[in-house]
Amino acid sequence: MAGTNKIRVGILGASGYTGAELVRLLARHPHAELRLLTADRQAGRKLAEVFPHLSGVALPDLVKIEDADWTGIDFIFCCLPHGTTQQVVAALPRRLKVVDLSADFRLADPALYAQWYGHEHQAVELQKEAVYGLTELNRAAVKAARLVANPGCYPTSVQLPLIPLIEAGEVAADDIVIDAKSGVSGAGRDAKQQNLYTEVSEGIHAYGVARHRHAPEIEQGLGAAAGKAVIVSFTPHLVPMSRGILSSIYLKLAGGASAEDLRDTLKQRYADEPFVRILASGQAPATRDVRGSNHCLIGVFADRVPGRAIVLGVIDNLVKGASGQAVQNMNLMAGFAETLGLEQQPLFP
Amino acid sequence: MAGTNKIRVGILGASGYTGAELVRLLARHPHAELRLLTADRQAGRKLAEVFPHLSGVALPDLVKIEDADWTGIDFIFCCLPHGTTQQVVAALPRRLKVVDLSADFRLADPALYAQWYGHEHQAVELQKEAVYGLTELNRAAVKAARLVANPGCYPTSVQLPLIPLIEAGEVAADDIVIDAKSGVSGAGRDAKQQNLYTEVSEGIHAYGVARHRHAPEIEQGLGAAAGKAVIVSFTPHLVPMSRGILSSIYLKLAGGASAEDLRDTLKQRYADEPFVRILASGQAPATRDVRGSNHCLIGVFADRVPGRAIVLGVIDNLVKGASGQAVQNMNLMAGFAETLGLEQQPLFP
Amino acid sequence: MAGTNKIRVGILGASGYTGAELVRLLARHPHAELRLLTADRQAGRKLAEVFPHLSGVALPDLVKIEDADWTGIDFIFCCLPHGTTQQVVAALPRRLKVVDLSADFRLADPALYAQWYGHEHQAVELQKEAVYGLTELNRAAVKAARLVANPGCYPTSVQLPLIPLIEAGEVAADDIVIDAKSGVSGAGRDAKQQNLYTEVSEGIHAYGVARHRHAPEIEQGLGAAAGKAVIVSFTPHLVPMSRGILSSIYLKLAGGASAEDLRDTLKQRYADEPFVRILASGQAPATRDVRGSNHCLIGVFADRVPGRAIVLGVIDNLVKGASGQAVQNMNLMAGFAETLGLEQQPLFP
Amino acid sequence: MAGTNKIRVGILGASGYTGAELVRLLARHPHAELRLLTADRQAGRKLAEVFPHLSGVALPDLVKIEDADWTGIDFIFCCLPHGTTQQVVAALPRRLKVVDLSADFRLADPALYAQWYGHEHQAVELQKEAVYGLTELNRAAVKAARLVANPGCYPTSVQLPLIPLIEAGEVAADDIVIDAKSGVSGAGRDAKQQNLYTEVSEGIHAYGVARHRHAPEIEQGLGAAAGKAVIVSFTPHLVPMSRGILSSIYLKLAGGASAEDLRDTLKQRYADEPFVRILASGQAPATRDVRGSNHCLIGVFADRVPGRAIVLGVIDNLVKGASGQAVQNMNLMAGFAETLGLEQQPLFP
Repeated sequence: MAGTNKIRVGILGASGYTGAELVRLLARHPHAELRLLTADRQAGRKLAEVFPHLSGVALPDLVKIEDADWTGIDFIFCCLPHGTTQQVVAALPRRLKVVDLSADFRLADPALYAQWYGHEHQAVELQKEAVYGLTELNRAAVKAARLVANPGCYPTSVQLPLIPLIEAGEVAADDIVIDAKSGVSGAGRDAKQQNLYTEVSEGIHAYGVARHRHAPEIEQGLGAAAGKAVIVSFTPHLVPMSRGILSSIYLKLAGGASAEDLRDTLKQRYADEPFVRILASGQAPATRDVRGSNHCLIGVFADRVPGRAIVLGVIDNLVKGASGQAVQNMNLMAGFAETLGLEQQPLFP
Repeated sequence: MAGTNKIRVGILGASGYTGAELVRLLARHPHAELRLLTADRQAGRKLAEVFPHLSGVALPDLVKIEDADWTGIDFIFCCLPHGTTQQVVAALPRRLKVVDLSADFRLADPALYAQWYGHEHQAVELQKEAVYGLTELNRAAVKAARLVANPGCYPTSVQLPLIPLIEAGEVAADDIVIDAKSGVSGAGRDAKQQNLYTEVSEGIHAYGVARHRHAPEIEQGLGAAAGKAVIVSFTPHLVPMSRGILSSIYLKLAGGASAEDLRDTLKQRYADEPFVRILASGQAPATRDVRGSNHCLIGVFADRVPGRAIVLGVIDNLVKGASGQAVQNMNLMAGFAETLGLEQQPLFP
Repeated sequence: MAGTNKIRVGILGASGYTGAELVRLLARHPHAELRLLTADRQAGRKLAEVFPHLSGVALPDLVKIEDADWTGIDFIFCCLPHGTTQQVVAALPRRLKVVDLSADFRLADPALYAQWYGHEHQAVELQKEAVYGLTELNRAAVKAARLVANPGCYPTSVQLPLIPLIEAGEVAADDIVIDAKSGVSGAGRDAKQQNLYTEVSEGIHAYGVARHRHAPEIEQGLGAAAGKAVIVSFTPHLVPMSRGILSSIYLKLAGGASAEDLRDTLKQRYADEPFVRILASGQAPATRDVRGSNHCLIGVFADRVPGRAIVLGVIDNLVKGASGQAVQNMNLMAGFAETLGLEQQPLFP
Repeated sequence: MAGTNKIRVGILGASGYTGAELVRLLARHPHAELRLLTADRQAGRKLAEVFPHLSGVALPDLVKIEDADWTGIDFIFCCLPHGTTQQVVAALPRRLKVVDLSADFRLADPALYAQWYGHEHQAVELQKEAVYGLTELNRAAVKAARLVANPGCYPTSVQLPLIPLIEAGEVAADDIVIDAKSGVSGAGRDAKQQNLYTEVSEGIHAYGVARHRHAPEIEQGLGAAAGKAVIVSFTPHLVPMSRGILSSIYLKLAGGASAEDLRDTLKQRYADEPFVRILASGQAPATRDVRGSNHCLIGVFADRVPGRAIVLGVIDNLVKGASGQAVQNMNLMAGFAETLGLEQQPLFP
């Protein structure tokens, strides 16, 4: 049934927002064909009943993961909750390539995982095998990987701007304050009182202050860039919008660098990247300008405080912060052009 | 510069929302190339400065319309305000094909135009020539047209469901109540106090009650279907959302038809249409399910009042209600596949 | 502890939005003292933990309803789910006056109740005793009542404008189309997927088409005004806003009346009412203008269709549509000035 | 006409959001009577035509400021744009007490004013006379003042938590990062494209990065507390909500203090304050919990980075950040109880 040059794709956990977003993106992908969609509680239904906006896409019915037939599948996107994911992935045939969107394989250190997730990792060998899929900064490893741990949404918005600056020695790795703002879709589609329209609309608040699980993921990446352990101040906030992350990052300049130097470093690093754009001096990025796209926009400002700079990064948390980057990684792993399925412009207004 | 099989496209008035939406859609069109963008007050700037979300698209700079060079252009989208549009279009070289998104050529009767717009039409011959571009219901004429009057957003959402029902004699043409709800982008990008975030958010109200200019446009189409003059009750409301129109239409059944008959008639009429979908019994369409797409969803219900039915139609006002339908019409006029540039799925959440 | 002229008030089911709204209003009431708050799942907690915005109010802790001590209580607001309410109210000491905000006592006809709620009413005697608390139109009965059934939010917004017009014979009772739009708080605070921010924001859709339980409540009131059975077309819609209802009502004029006659009738009927205001010709009411207040605004328009009129009514569903009207009824039942606790102006923007 | 114990109040510039908010609050004030409302472009109209939500309040018609009769007035709230304000206030009869809500009298240093506002101050004597109206921290001076400069919205949200901590020597005054988020009403009611619903909804972005005029106002207050010049990193963001400010403040602990010490210091300082509340450990304040009220909520957290703390302050920018604090100051200046007119609870949801 599949075209000869198409890979046959399965999505595990297709009834959540990241699953639906994968379907939206892959529906336009010329070399991928959706052949398997699992959703335990919705098994037997059509995805279009769960997500009417996807009615236009020809899709297999939802099945339980235990009923999945792996024989016709080449590639798996795993959108299951952390904790259960590791056992599911461990049970998959080894010939399948996998991009996992959960947090299960993001932390390389089993002790760190256990500390933040409250239990021992159940698939330590896979944890070692997994490649961290921050595409622009880990491209070669992703290309060669069988199992990719897709980065968290906040960590993507923070590491894309910061890692090149830390590697260049232009900012102090021991004085980083990250004030991050996210849309509500990051919390998923499960019914929770705190995510009701009436609770979120027309307000803003911080959450998970000083204890959000994306902090160690960020520190892992920044620490590798710095060549030493890094600890960051990281505070996420919930904003009344469905999509989008803005990370406002407050930095101390180092090595005699100026804010202009930071911008130059980023421009050079991302000059050939189709999805990352460094804004001109004086321009602040807005989440509305990346909505629905795989783009990351970065603005750089000299702070009023001498010797300090402000870096602002925006992404769509469901695209570059999740499903879009996952497709980007699949493209690399399958040897496709990296932008396939990801060419659409942002939707504004 | 253009590929051999590409038409060279110009957009007049590219700095408004419908202009930007055309650019978004045409950026992915395999057979169209944007060669001219006009915007009098923004001339000399790049469109990406006016609409940063379009930074990823290679585009010509904005020019004044008086500086436009028509020689390299095959096709024009006109997104200018009504009133001035008619003179601009009249001055274009006749060899150019045109889709006009203003109201200037929608009403066929010059007297009706003068009554609703307060002045005589300045290009009556063109008004006669213009073809009304409700694509699914006027396809043959659109294919052959040089000048297409792109329908209004509300009229599209109303006529797609109603015209087949009136033609089938299944609803009474003299007892039609339309309660329409629109997102704010329908009001354009000009700075107006009533469209400020603070004025619109978290509220709803009717506007233009019993005097909105889309009423005669609707009546023109329904009247043609009924074979007699039709007058409708039409009340638009402003909803705190950027995109989307929902028209809730209250109808008296005729000719012994039931609500199920209405659904069958619509299903049959739109069976082969890629952009129109008739929902199953009991399903109500939601604007979120068409956001960013050229889709139109229609739900049909028996009313509790015997002999009456409720028909609900939703579109994205900027796509099927404006720029998407315009591209659809261009595809027809240029002999392309009708769905080119319009294949993307809706964006949800 | 209570001042000598204060009534001692209990709220059953204080952890929902209508309970919280009662607390907000009664906190400023000079003659009411909150002495009992029940919330079974939250028993033992402070209300300020459940609703931090109410931290400034001195309140008793939440208790289970089975642990409630009725001895120190004079007046009860019952905010429990329909179905369970009737048994709870039946078990209360008869000396307590009660305003019930559920649907349990709104329908006077036990057969109608059974038909719409799927089971026999468990407290038919109380159902007979209950007075329908549409304050402005049933003031004398409310004053004398022991048990008041507080009207539903939609029925309040519909009946306040329609009942005087039907009584005056100025509109046809057999040709009424109601297109109602509500904010999300009407759905309560329980965690439901369809009320998540991500599901509701930036969209609109109809729900409960032709089968919403407020239809028979509306018909009961309009039927009494008309002196005959009435059946209405009633379609509710969910709007991305927390508070507010707009009912757009499409009417056939009767008895030779004009839209101006309708406005005059309403102006006369509500001339001395502090909470109901009839707008001037050409003015459409907006929900933003009643937010947080007990106000009802009504606009009247001649339709473009000869012989028809459009009436627009707006309220805040949590105030005049629920807790505000409940306090208004309490004031009457206790012999207080009707506006006590309800004097605040709307909050805009 | 005025009650014997009422002060007669005028509002200059009553057609903006802060003017309307003053009317909303003063409508319930037992000792204030609104006798004068100016609005040059709206002169001759009723305020209820400009702000229909205020229809229920008995008010004088709007007049031009040049037509104002000061003879019957005791107290002025000035809500005019900065720049023109200084001359208007200079021309007022000296017997009038004034609270000015513009920025004109907030900066004590004329050179600093000239630097940030681009022109010499036109009323330097008044600038010297003006008392900075951060009520809780400057109460004695406000009580004795004739002219009060009402603080900016951001500076209120920042100084209330920070000044006591700096005075206590518990945080380093030279390492302060403020990431502030505001609702859109802070931008006023003038029609500006960037504040349209379509531009703001469903997005977030920083603005005025490293050059916002509230930075020097904040530094003036913090510097006085520190006893030395202070320079802060201050970045405001625009959030899709009408009301509310959240300032997330990242601090270095000093003098051996812990985050718990910070909370204790704030709890002690504000123990008797009716409008300021320090949250318990682990609680983050939300703007929804102060909406429409004069409350300020403050949360304190130990950062993950050793030796650092996070302080979160929320207010309603139109109330405690503008008109509410203005009324609070008026109450002090007139010898009234400080909470008069400000007793209402927040509006949620």
